[in-house]
Amino acid sequence: MSTLTKQPLADAPAETVPKNDDRPRLFLAGVGSVGGTLLRQLQALPDAQTAPRVIGACTERRAAWYDAPRPPAEVDEAFPGGVPTDWPRLLEHLEKAAAHADAPLVFVDATDSVEVARYHARLLEAGCSVVTPSKHALTQEQAYFDRLQRAAGNHDGQDSSSGTATYHYETTAGAGLPVLSTLRDLLRTGDRIERVRGAASGTLSFLFSRLREGDPFSAAVEDAIARGYAEPDVRTDLSGEDVARKFLILGRTMGLTLERDDLDVESLVPEALRDVSLDTFLDELPRFDDEWAERTRAARENDATLQYVGRLAGGHIRVAVEEVPADAPFGLLSGTDNLFEFQTARYDGAPLSVRGPGAGPQVTAAGVLADVLAAVRDA
Amino acid sequence: MSTLTKQPLADAPAETVPKNDDRPRLFLAGVGSVGGTLLRQLQALPDAQTAPRVIGACTERRAAWYDAPRPPAEVDEAFPGGVPTDWPRLLEHLEKAAAHADAPLVFVDATDSVEVARYHARLLEAGCSVVTPSKHALTQEQAYFDRLQRAAGNHDGQDSSSGTATYHYETTAGAGLPVLSTLRDLLRTGDRIERVRGAASGTLSFLFSRLREGDPFSAAVEDAIARGYAEPDVRTDLSGEDVARKFLILGRTMGLTLERDDLDVESLVPEALRDVSLDTFLDELPRFDDEWAERTRAARENDATLQYVGRLAGGHIRVAVEEVPADAPFGLLSGTDNLFEFQTARYDGAPLSVRGPGAGPQVTAAGVLADVLAAVRDA
Repeated sequence: MSTLTKQPLADAPAETVPKNDDRPRLFLAGVGSVGGTLLRQLQALPDAQTAPRVIGACTERRAAWYDAPRPPAEVDEAFPGGVPTDWPRLLEHLEKAAAHADAPLVFVDATDSVEVARYHARLLEAGCSVVTPSKHALTQEQAYFDRLQRAAGNHDGQDSSSGTATYHYETTAGAGLPVLSTLRDLLRTGDRIERVRGAASGTLSFLFSRLREGDPFSAAVEDAIARGYAEPDVRTDLSGEDVARKFLILGRTMGLTLERDDLDVESLVPEALRDVSLDTFLDELPRFDDEWAERTRAARENDATLQYVGRLAGGHIRVAVEEVPADAPFGLLSGTDNLFEFQTARYDGAPLSVRGPGAGPQVTAAGVLADVLAAVRDA
Repeated sequence: MSTLTKQPLADAPAETVPKNDDRPRLFLAGVGSVGGTLLRQLQALPDAQTAPRVIGACTERRAAWYDAPRPPAEVDEAFPGGVPTDWPRLLEHLEKAAAHADAPLVFVDATDSVEVARYHARLLEAGCSVVTPSKHALTQEQAYFDRLQRAAGNHDGQDSSSGTATYHYETTAGAGLPVLSTLRDLLRTGDRIERVRGAASGTLSFLFSRLREGDPFSAAVEDAIARGYAEPDVRTDLSGEDVARKFLILGRTMGLTLERDDLDVESLVPEALRDVSLDTFLDELPRFDDEWAERTRAARENDATLQYVGRLAGGHIRVAVEEVPADAPFGLLSGTDNLFEFQTARYDGAPLSVRGPGAGPQVTAAGVLADVLAAVRDA
C-alpha cells in the first residue's frame, strides 16, 4: 500500500523498512517495457532469497511507496492506491531511505526522462546507488558527468564521501553486451585504447544489410518500421543521435573531456526533410533512393559495403557512413546486431570484439539486472 | 630480502607486514612469460598508490619471501637471496599471512603445475584469494572443483566460512576476452544457456584458415610452429585437449557435473603418430595431407569450411572438426582469433559473441590483473 501521502515524511524510512530486514531495496522509476521486464526477471532470479525487494516505483504520472518492501511480483504496475508522481517528495523519501544503512538502496531509472536523469547526482550524493539504461544523464554537459563520477567515487581514484553509492550504466552502449565493462577492464589494467569502432544501432545495421542486398533505401526504412525495429519517429534512428550518444558515453568513460557538439555526426535524414511531418518524410524519402543506390554501387566497386560506424580515436569521435571491406565483420553484420571493436596497446593486431543484439527489452533488462546485482555487491 | 629460512615461522606474518600497511598483498607462483608480464603490468597500473604489493614469489625451483611487501618492480625474477622452493613451508607462510586481516592476500598461480593447482583449495580455505590462468585445478575431478567453489563461497549461494577469499579464473577460456564473465552474468541474471559454441584454440583457428586457403595440412602445422603459435609439442594443440579443458571449465561453471571422460573429443593426431617422437610425427604428417584436402574439398561443395569447434548443449560437450558455413563468423575466423558464441533464452535469435586473440602473454597477464583487482575489490 502506498503511504506517500498518509505518513509524515520524517518517519517514513524507519517505519517502511523494518530494522531487521537487511535485504537490498530497489526503487524503480519507469515500468515500461524495460522496467516491467526487469520486475519479472528480478522475481525469477535463481537466488530469490537474497534478491532485492521493491521499496517503491513510479511512472511519469503515478507513484507508489511501500510500507514494507515487496517482492517484485507484488508490484502492481497500475499502482492502485498510488499517488500522482511528485519528484521533490519522492527524492526526500529516497534520501531518507538511503540514510537507513542496514540495507543497500538502488534507484533504477528506466525512464526516458531528462528530468529524472538530472536527479541522479543528488541521489548518489545521498548514498543511493543508481542504475540506468538511459543515456540522458551521461550525455548532459561534461560538468554533470564529472559530478556523477565524483558522487559515485569513480573519479581520479577518490573515494566517495558516502563510501557506498555506485553508478552503473553498462546498458547504455550495446544493452546487455559486455561493451562498457570490457572498456573498463582494459582501462583498469592499464591498457591504452587506440581505437574503438562500433556499429551501435541495430536499426542502422538492418538498414545497411538491406541496402547491401539491393533494396531501395526508402523500402529498407519502411521495412525497419514494419518490423518494429525503429523509434516512433524513425528519424531519431537515422539522425545518428543515438549512436553519437553511445560514443559520447564511451569517450567520457575513457576519461575524455567532450561535449556533444565536439562530435562529427553524419545524419541520414536529408536536410530538406528534417522539419516536415513523419508522413511527409516517408512520402518524400524515395526521392533519395537513387543517391543511396549509387553510393552502394560505388562501394561495391571497391569490394566494400556501407555501414554506419562510430569511431573513437585520438580523442575525437566521428559517427558516419563508412565504406567497410565486404568480407570484414562490419561488412557482414546481419539482422539488428551491434558490433564493437577495441584496438589497444595489447590488442594491437586483431581487435577484441563483441557482437550481438544491442537492444530489446529482454536483453536490456537483463543488463540492468546485472548492474543492480553489481550495485548491491559493491554496497 | 628473503627471510624464508632465517625467521621463525610463527612470527613471519606479523613481522613481514607492518600493521599500518593495509594495501593488498600478492604472492606470485610462476614468473614465466605470463607471471613476468603481470609484474610489469602491476607496476604500470594507473593507480599505483593502491596497487597490490608483492609479499613473495617463486618458480618451480626457487622462492623468495619479502620482509616488507615490495613494489612489483623490485621483484628480482632471479631471486638473489632466495631459497629452494619448499611448498609445505610456503603454504604455512601464506596461511599465516592470510590470517593477517588488515590487507587482502591474493595468490596468483601462473605456473603450469598440477601440484600447485592442488593447493588452491587449501589456500582458499585459509582465507587467501586465488587467481589463476591455469586450467589444472578446474579440470581435476569434479569433487575438487566443488571443493574450490565451496571454499570460495560460490557454491549454492552459501557464504564462505572465512567470508573473504574468492577464486578467479577468467583467463582459462579466451585469456583476456570476456568469456567466463559473460557466462557468469547471463547465469546470475537468470538467463538459460541453450548452447555455447567456441573456436577456443588460436593454433587450430590458424590451421583451418590455412587449409581453407589451400595449404596442405602438414605445411599449415609447420607454419604454426615456425610462427611460434604452437605448444612445444604441437600434438598438445592438435589433440584438442586444450579446447576440451576450456569447455569442461565452461560446463562446470554453468553448474554441470562433468568429468573429463564425459566429453567427446576428436583428436587431429593420427592414431599411428601419437606415441612416436616429435620429429617422426612431423616427418610422417604429410601422409595425411590428402585426407585433409579431401575433407576440405567436401566441405567446400556444401558452401562450408572446416573449423575446430567446441559445443556445449543439453548438458553434453563435444569438441571436434565441424563443417561451418563459409560466410558465417566461425567460417571466416582469421589469424589466431578465438570466437565464443552464447545462445540463450534471451539471446535466442542472434547469439551474443566475443572474438579476439585468446592467448599471448600480454592479454593473458592483463586478464589475470583484472582478476587480481576483482579479488582485492571483493575482499
